[in-house]
Amino acid sequence: MNQSLSTRRNQVAEWFRSLQEHICKELEAEDTVGKFHEDRWERPGGGGGHTRILKGGKVIEKGGVNFSAVYGTPPESTVLHAGLDPATVKEFFATGVSIVLHPSNPLVPIIHMNVRYFDLGESDWWFGGGIDLTPHYVKPEDARFFHTQMKAACDRHDPMYYSTFKQWADDYFFITHRNETRGIGGIFFDYLKATDGFSFDDRFAFVKSVGESFAPTYRELMRRNKEANYHDDHKKWQLLRRGRYVEFNLIYDRGTKFGLESNGRTESILMSLPAHADWEYDYRPAAGSPEEYTWSMLRKGVDWINEG
Amino acid sequence: MNQSLSTRRNQVAEWFRSLQEHICKELEAEDTVGKFHEDRWERPGGGGGHTRILKGGKVIEKGGVNFSAVYGTPPESTVLHAGLDPATVKEFFATGVSIVLHPSNPLVPIIHMNVRYFDLGESDWWFGGGIDLTPHYVKPEDARFFHTQMKAACDRHDPMYYSTFKQWADDYFFITHRNETRGIGGIFFDYLKATDGFSFDDRFAFVKSVGESFAPTYRELMRRNKEANYHDDHKKWQLLRRGRYVEFNLIYDRGTKFGLESNGRTESILMSLPAHADWEYDYRPAAGSPEEYTWSMLRKGVDWINEG
Repeated sequence: MNQSLSTRRNQVAEWFRSLQEHICKELEAEDTVGKFHEDRWERPGGGGGHTRILKGGKVIEKGGVNFSAVYGTPPESTVLHAGLDPATVKEFFATGVSIVLHPSNPLVPIIHMNVRYFDLGESDWWFGGGIDLTPHYVKPEDARFFHTQMKAACDRHDPMYYSTFKQWADDYFFITHRNETRGIGGIFFDYLKATDGFSFDDRFAFVKSVGESFAPTYRELMRRNKEANYHDDHKKWQLLRRGRYVEFNLIYDRGTKFGLESNGRTESILMSLPAHADWEYDYRPAAGSPEEYTWSMLRKGVDWINEG
Repeated sequence: MNQSLSTRRNQVAEWFRSLQEHICKELEAEDTVGKFHEDRWERPGGGGGHTRILKGGKVIEKGGVNFSAVYGTPPESTVLHAGLDPATVKEFFATGVSIVLHPSNPLVPIIHMNVRYFDLGESDWWFGGGIDLTPHYVKPEDARFFHTQMKAACDRHDPMYYSTFKQWADDYFFITHRNETRGIGGIFFDYLKATDGFSFDDRFAFVKSVGESFAPTYRELMRRNKEANYHDDHKKWQLLRRGRYVEFNLIYDRGTKFGLESNGRTESILMSLPAHADWEYDYRPAAGSPEEYTWSMLRKGVDWINEG
């Protein structure tokens, strides 16, 4: 391996590792009670990860902030998808941070972030990732704040990033069989390479901005809502919305599917599932209820910053 | 359509419809409290179904006994899978009964049955289906009873059916990413056609035996266990095992996948999901506990009748 590839991999993995550290500290500070527990694991084919799980916090009921850096023989489908010849591509390297947090208070939203770097040796490399928010109860002022934060992270790097990646998130975080979005979206991006005038450093700088926006954004959303009073109706609706979250993650989420099919570490991958989830046959929220309002907002194309 | 195809379709659908009726009555009698609620629905492309849901029974917490009979333009993948030319196959017809029952008492097992008939007009037809049992707590005497019942239904028709279909169930009801079976298996079969000396009547008679074995088998399992005392530990384990059931149904179950991808009625398809399910990161049952015993038995190839 030449020096620059090795340097790049170390640089990115090191930064992701420090991001995990930073985010865990910030979340523990806002939660005030919960502490992350770390499991280190090795991947038989090469590399490994640090899975960090928090359960039973004051704000976070169950959540994970996972780091991994793995390498080895690339899955053939990945090489073919990159338009390369499997005979010539001998190795891959992938590193990233994945987060899903399920709060206990239904008025605090679920959040998800993934930032990742992938390369096929010298042949190709790209960044991908995103952040999306799943409020059990849509609050326009929180939705506006969240999307404004996402837009700010994007705008520092390219004026087209936010609108492109916001639409990508609307399309990606969609539960087709329910004809509803998972939540209020956010940003989603993939295959960010040295194209369209962007360098490796440009793309990496953008991914850093996304990663760094996570803690202040979610801490603010926790702060705003963690003391809110809630009742049995809120809890019931939260558990049903978590059921939808489970449906999305097990049926549509590409990272989950890729992870399980490639014999990834199951417990790390499925940390995204909530502690408790409910299903009720043909449940419909009452007309005019806050639950019905939220349901009506789970659609693509909402301009949360200006319309919300 | 010629007379015999039409007659055959009506004959099978009528029998499935009466099976649904029979099973619902039997389950209500054993439950003593719960009643099935019926929703009739139509499929835009042709046909429809009767979805019957029971919730909040004395024994059954949530369950469905669904009948459907649908027809229209066949999915191209199905035609190709049957080795036929999509240009020449203009229609399909499918009818069946699907059942999943989640009991509230953790000592009563979850049960699933599906029996179905499928044809591509005059070109091809087949039966498929199966019954499998998912005890939250494996009890060897119940497992022996269940498999003996399945074997008896098979043995009336062919001496090879049970061993073949038992192995098929072990392979099918398997949660690959957990390296464990969903439960103790049962029987699973598909593409039963007029081959190997069997006629349509032979295959239909077998499917009838399977369908008719359901109510007496599950009533006996309910009767044996419904009054059993249980504690918080049993309930906790039940909810975790239901989480696995959700994982199987959303990731591996072919009927669920086919139904959702072909724009089937989502609420009817997902009636298989429990009212409540839990996930806990890296949960391991205590050494020597009944939960650990059950976990150790969730594997392929157990001879439940003779070894159990």
